[in-house]
Amino acid sequence: MFRNFKTVERIVFGRGCFNQLDEILAQQRTGKTSPVVFLVDDAFENKPLKDRVPVHAQDLLIWVNVDDEPKTRYVDQLTAQVSDAMRSAGLENPCGVIGIGGGSTMDLAKAVSLMLTNPGSSADYQGWDLIKNPAVYHAAVPTLSGTGAEVSRTTVLTGPEKKLGINSDYTVFDQVVLDPELIAGAPADQRFFTGMDCYIHCVESLTGTYLNAFSQSYGEKALSLCRNVFLDNHPDSDDQLMMASFFGGMSIAYSQVGVCHALSYGLSFVLGLHHGIGNSIAFDYLEEFYPEGVMEFRKMMQKQGIDLPRGVVSDATEAQIDKMVDVALILEPLWENALGKDWSKIMTRERIRNLYQRM
Amino acid sequence: MFRNFKTVERIVFGRGCFNQLDEILAQQRTGKTSPVVFLVDDAFENKPLKDRVPVHAQDLLIWVNVDDEPKTRYVDQLTAQVSDAMRSAGLENPCGVIGIGGGSTMDLAKAVSLMLTNPGSSADYQGWDLIKNPAVYHAAVPTLSGTGAEVSRTTVLTGPEKKLGINSDYTVFDQVVLDPELIAGAPADQRFFTGMDCYIHCVESLTGTYLNAFSQSYGEKALSLCRNVFLDNHPDSDDQLMMASFFGGMSIAYSQVGVCHALSYGLSFVLGLHHGIGNSIAFDYLEEFYPEGVMEFRKMMQKQGIDLPRGVVSDATEAQIDKMVDVALILEPLWENALGKDWSKIMTRERIRNLYQRM
Repeated sequence: MFRNFKTVERIVFGRGCFNQLDEILAQQRTGKTSPVVFLVDDAFENKPLKDRVPVHAQDLLIWVNVDDEPKTRYVDQLTAQVSDAMRSAGLENPCGVIGIGGGSTMDLAKAVSLMLTNPGSSADYQGWDLIKNPAVYHAAVPTLSGTGAEVSRTTVLTGPEKKLGINSDYTVFDQVVLDPELIAGAPADQRFFTGMDCYIHCVESLTGTYLNAFSQSYGEKALSLCRNVFLDNHPDSDDQLMMASFFGGMSIAYSQVGVCHALSYGLSFVLGLHHGIGNSIAFDYLEEFYPEGVMEFRKMMQKQGIDLPRGVVSDATEAQIDKMVDVALILEPLWENALGKDWSKIMTRERIRNLYQRM
Repeated sequence: MFRNFKTVERIVFGRGCFNQLDEILAQQRTGKTSPVVFLVDDAFENKPLKDRVPVHAQDLLIWVNVDDEPKTRYVDQLTAQVSDAMRSAGLENPCGVIGIGGGSTMDLAKAVSLMLTNPGSSADYQGWDLIKNPAVYHAAVPTLSGTGAEVSRTTVLTGPEKKLGINSDYTVFDQVVLDPELIAGAPADQRFFTGMDCYIHCVESLTGTYLNAFSQSYGEKALSLCRNVFLDNHPDSDDQLMMASFFGGMSIAYSQVGVCHALSYGLSFVLGLHHGIGNSIAFDYLEEFYPEGVMEFRKMMQKQGIDLPRGVVSDATEAQIDKMVDVALILEPLWENALGKDWSKIMTRERIRNLYQRM
């Protein structure tokens, strides 16, 4: 059985295409009062982008804070905020939820659009295919590239028990607006670490056991675009990084991430590290699993003048490290992809603990 | 303004995934009597694939003949045949139209699914965005790879006046089933010429003036997959050729084909040559426009032991050549992509005529 892969239905790509967002949303504003909800990374609260968001009178613009990665609690709170606003206006739901920001903001938009039509807490849906009802129309405008959140069928959330995505065909965006101009202003570190999310998940997918030609074609091209951006400083780096992220996300259709992502989830859950930086920290210690990838990653760091945080686990308690191991071990498909069906014989609790202790 | 590109919503890729077609269609068979119409290339009438088509009692299997490229007349006839069968069963429309075959068969499925919901003749809709109503659900199962018909927003038809596609977002398939096992049995010549459709349109797109990073990323990877298949005889050639075709089709989102496709349309219209072979014949005379591409194309021909038909235009009358020139000149976006805004100063009737006369 092969996955019948759900794609993003509409994609617009081009420098300046953000200007088309209003026109695109007009097709969703079918009723007399059809409010759109914009969830925008609060990093833009004082940036020129603020005035370019096509907010109409009845719309709701919510500045979201992603200093921490998205938590189920925050998703539930945002969903309630939107529901309350709609109720006050005598409406059931908005006609669209638009996420403008990086992977975390896009994941919040996905999660809120799902939770507006599915009862209970977002924590109830962390897992695979637990969502019952289609989401509200939702669109993404990435302002950082690398996570692949713009095309993936997951919204990664940190819940009370675990860091795990809401994986569902309904999670997939209806529309993405890929405007390379929007990623030009990101801080160099953030741009690099987010870009490395793409690089690393392609290395994991291409060396994994799940691969087929579909995922390989996307993954190989994504890697080569990452090289153009981070080794060669290609003049079209913004455009190419945006495509690398898109291709990297598509490559996951028939593959999986691996050891690095599993370990990174533990780092994020316990230490609150952002996914991109958590990946980079973990990857640097995974030479035994990804020798060529790790070597090239270090070259990219050097070329881009990036310093990796060291010793992030040194102050962690035994209990914290145990929890990291627990969180990493939940992610069975990742381990199986990386190490094959007998992965649990290879990757013992002790070995994971040793890896964490070096970070 | 950038095109808001409509994608195929569901893609399944994998060796043997054709076996999942019945399950996929089950989700469309919602009513008590929801017949599916299968349009299948009659080349399979005596092949084992015949017994694997998941035909239910109420369904309609129509063997289609694509010795000639799809004509608007044939589309209208097939549409009437389906409509009559539905009317006899007391139904309005089938719940799906499934094309199983190469580019021509896929184009017939697209066209019939559109014409079941749009009045008049398919010839009325040859052009850009003339279709008014959404098509019946339609899916493709390619058994030849290279045309990109599985992802494109056109169905190329030969009408009374011209060879021109029905270009519309509604033309795009709802589902594609990409099973590399199905393309294994094609005759070597047909496989090669269809594959060259992909190779050539990527060369045209990558050297054209319309290109952006989206189309470039897809086009470059499609070319490199074509090289694996036709220069290196890669062991996974079927899988890679299928992906090359898919990527080649996607690369057209923000680009266009060029000189070769324009000339090939004229050859097809007047001499009835199939698109793939028409492209190859024309391309071999286009060194001045695509020097590297033509050189590599010749290497691929040599490596695959393919002989190109020569002198196909030698018996054509003056009037026929005039008509070829007319048909080619209609395709303004292709010329503009290849030669820039001032293309008509560069590509005169006389120059096109001279090119045809050499073929």
